[in-house]
Amino acid sequence: MPANATGLPFDDFRTLLANLPGADRAAVEAVRARDGELTKPRGSLGRMEALAEWLAAWTGRAPAVNRPLVAVFAGNHGVTEEGVSPFPSDVTAQMVSNFAAGGAAINQICVAYDLGLKVFDLALEVPTGNITKEAAMDERTCAATMAFGMEAIAGGTDLLCIGEMGIGNTTIAAAMCHGLYGGEAEDWVGSGTGAEGDVLARKIEAVKAAVALHKAHLSDPLEVLRRLGGREIAAMAGAILAARVERIPVIIDGYVATAAAAVLHKANPAALDHCLIGHVSAEPGHARVIAKLDKTPLLAMGMRLGEGTGAALAAGIVKAAALCHSGMATFAQAGVSGKE
Amino acid sequence: MPANATGLPFDDFRTLLANLPGADRAAVEAVRARDGELTKPRGSLGRMEALAEWLAAWTGRAPAVNRPLVAVFAGNHGVTEEGVSPFPSDVTAQMVSNFAAGGAAINQICVAYDLGLKVFDLALEVPTGNITKEAAMDERTCAATMAFGMEAIAGGTDLLCIGEMGIGNTTIAAAMCHGLYGGEAEDWVGSGTGAEGDVLARKIEAVKAAVALHKAHLSDPLEVLRRLGGREIAAMAGAILAARVERIPVIIDGYVATAAAAVLHKANPAALDHCLIGHVSAEPGHARVIAKLDKTPLLAMGMRLGEGTGAALAAGIVKAAALCHSGMATFAQAGVSGKE
Repeated sequence: MPANATGLPFDDFRTLLANLPGADRAAVEAVRARDGELTKPRGSLGRMEALAEWLAAWTGRAPAVNRPLVAVFAGNHGVTEEGVSPFPSDVTAQMVSNFAAGGAAINQICVAYDLGLKVFDLALEVPTGNITKEAAMDERTCAATMAFGMEAIAGGTDLLCIGEMGIGNTTIAAAMCHGLYGGEAEDWVGSGTGAEGDVLARKIEAVKAAVALHKAHLSDPLEVLRRLGGREIAAMAGAILAARVERIPVIIDGYVATAAAAVLHKANPAALDHCLIGHVSAEPGHARVIAKLDKTPLLAMGMRLGEGTGAALAAGIVKAAALCHSGMATFAQAGVSGKE
Repeated sequence: MPANATGLPFDDFRTLLANLPGADRAAVEAVRARDGELTKPRGSLGRMEALAEWLAAWTGRAPAVNRPLVAVFAGNHGVTEEGVSPFPSDVTAQMVSNFAAGGAAINQICVAYDLGLKVFDLALEVPTGNITKEAAMDERTCAATMAFGMEAIAGGTDLLCIGEMGIGNTTIAAAMCHGLYGGEAEDWVGSGTGAEGDVLARKIEAVKAAVALHKAHLSDPLEVLRRLGGREIAAMAGAILAARVERIPVIIDGYVATAAAAVLHKANPAALDHCLIGHVSAEPGHARVIAKLDKTPLLAMGMRLGEGTGAALAAGIVKAAALCHSGMATFAQAGVSGKE
C-alpha cells in the first residue's frame, strides 16, 4: 500500500481503517448448527467452541488451521540511549540470528505445534529516533513500514501470530499506551527484560519525557504510532490490518504487540474484532491495555518474553479447537443418545 | 497390588500412601542451572519454566515428553436411578464406542498434540451401588479397581493425563467432595452435563442423602472413595498413585478426576505433589476442590466435558515447556550478549 500520489502517506491507512470488512455471520451460524449436533453436551467445550466460531467468522469458512504462521518483527530504538534496558541493542540482531538458527524459545513452540515462522528484520542498523527528543519516524517511513508489514503475510496463512523482538521496546509500548490512554507513566511501565532500580527509574522518566514532548499530537493514533512507536510496531500494525482485509484471524502476543494493535483499535473500535489476545503477560501494563481493548486473553502463564511466544502457545489451543469442531462425530453418526 | 494375605484390602494402599517417594531435587537443580543460561531473560517464560522443573522433579531426568498418554476411565453409577442426569446411563458405553471410533473431543485433542489414548471400560454393565441407599462398592471391589487403575499405566508413559466418562459421576464427585470437605451440598453440586430445574434439585437431594447416610464413616478418605465414589474414580486414584511410584508426572482433568485425586490428598497432603491440575472447569465445585488441594490450574477455558479434555489441552502446553527447556540455545552457543 504505497502512499497515493497527492495525499499524505497515512491517507490510505485512514481510509482502510474506516472501511474494514466485517465478520461472516453465515459461517458462524453454520458452526453453531454443527456444534449442536456434536457428541458432547452443548456448551461443554466452553471457550474452545467460541474459538471455532471466531475462526469461521474471520475466514468465512469451516474452522480449520492448515497454515499457521508466526511472524516476528524486529526493530531497534533510539530511546535505548536513555539507559532503559539492562541489555545492549546488539541483542536484537543477535536474537534475530538465534531465531534463524532455531535456538530461541519461539522456535521450540513452533516445533511443538507445527507452526511456520518468519522473522522480519526492520533496518536494525538504523534505530528509530529517540522519542524523548524527537519523533521515532517521519510519516513516510512509518507508512512504508506499515506497508511492509502488510506484505509480510502475502505468502499465505490461515492463522497469523504476531510477535516482536527489540531491545527497548517495552519502553516504546509504555509510551504509546500512556499516549493513547493517559493515566500516569508508572501505570504503563514494567520491568520488561529485567529493568530494576536505576534502569527502571530511567525507563519511567523516558516515558514521561516522550509523552510530554509529543503531547500536542497524541489525539491521532497514527501520530502516536509514528512519534512514540518503532519500526516493528508499525509493521505489526500493518500486518494486523492486512490480515483483516485478507480474512486471516490474528493472535496477538504480549505488551508490545498489543500496543501496536491498540493504535488500530483507537482509530476504529472494531479494528481488532478478528484478533485474539493470546495471553496476558507478566508486564503489568499488558492487562491494562487488554482491558482498554475489551478483550479476554486466552492464557495467563506469567510470561514476558515476547517473540510471539504467548501467541504461539495460544495457537496450539486454537488448532485443537478447530480439530474438535471439524473432527468430532455427531450424535447420529456415533449412535449416542441425546438428553432424555 | 492385590490385597495381602491376612489384612484388609485397603491395607496395602494405606501403607503406600504413607510412604510416597519425593521429588528429585538434583534434577530440579540441573534444570535451574541450565535455565539461567538459555537465551531469554531469567524468569521470562513464567510458568513454562515451572513446568520444566516439575517434569524434572517427578521423572528424575531432564524435561522431556516422549510418550504422553491420556487414560480415560469409564464407569456407571447406581445413583442415576435418582434422576440426577439429563442423559441416560447408556451414553457411557456409547461414548466409549465413540472414543474407540475416534469421534469424541478427546480424540481430536490427542491428534492435535500427538498424545496416546487408552480407554478403560470398568464393568459398565454393573453399575455401582446407589450411594443414597448403600455403599458404591465393598472394600474388596474398591481395592481391586484401584489396583486395576495402577496396572493401566504399565504400558509405559512419561506424562499421564487422567480423565473419565460416566453418566452421573458429577453427582458422585459432589458427594465425595461434600464428604471430604463438608460445607453444604449446594456448594459442590453443579449442572454437570446439563442438569437444570428438577434434575438439578434431585442431584442436590441425592448428594445430601448420600452424605447423611454414610456420615459416620467419612473421616477415612478411602471409605469416602468406596462408599460415595465409583469404579472410574477408584481406578483414577490407583493410576495417580502408581504414577507417583513409577516417577510419571500426572495431569488431572476436571471435577470428577480431581475428586478422585482429593481422596489421596486427604490421606497424605503430599500425595499430589507430582500432579498438575490441567484446567479449572465450569463446574463450580471444581475451583473449590482445587483450592483445597492448594493447586493452581494451568488453563481456564470454561470447559466441562470430562474425557480428559482439559488435561490433554494442558499436555500440549507441557510438551512445549519441555521443548523450550531442552531445545533452546544458551547465550554462549548463540553468541547473544547478556545484561550489561
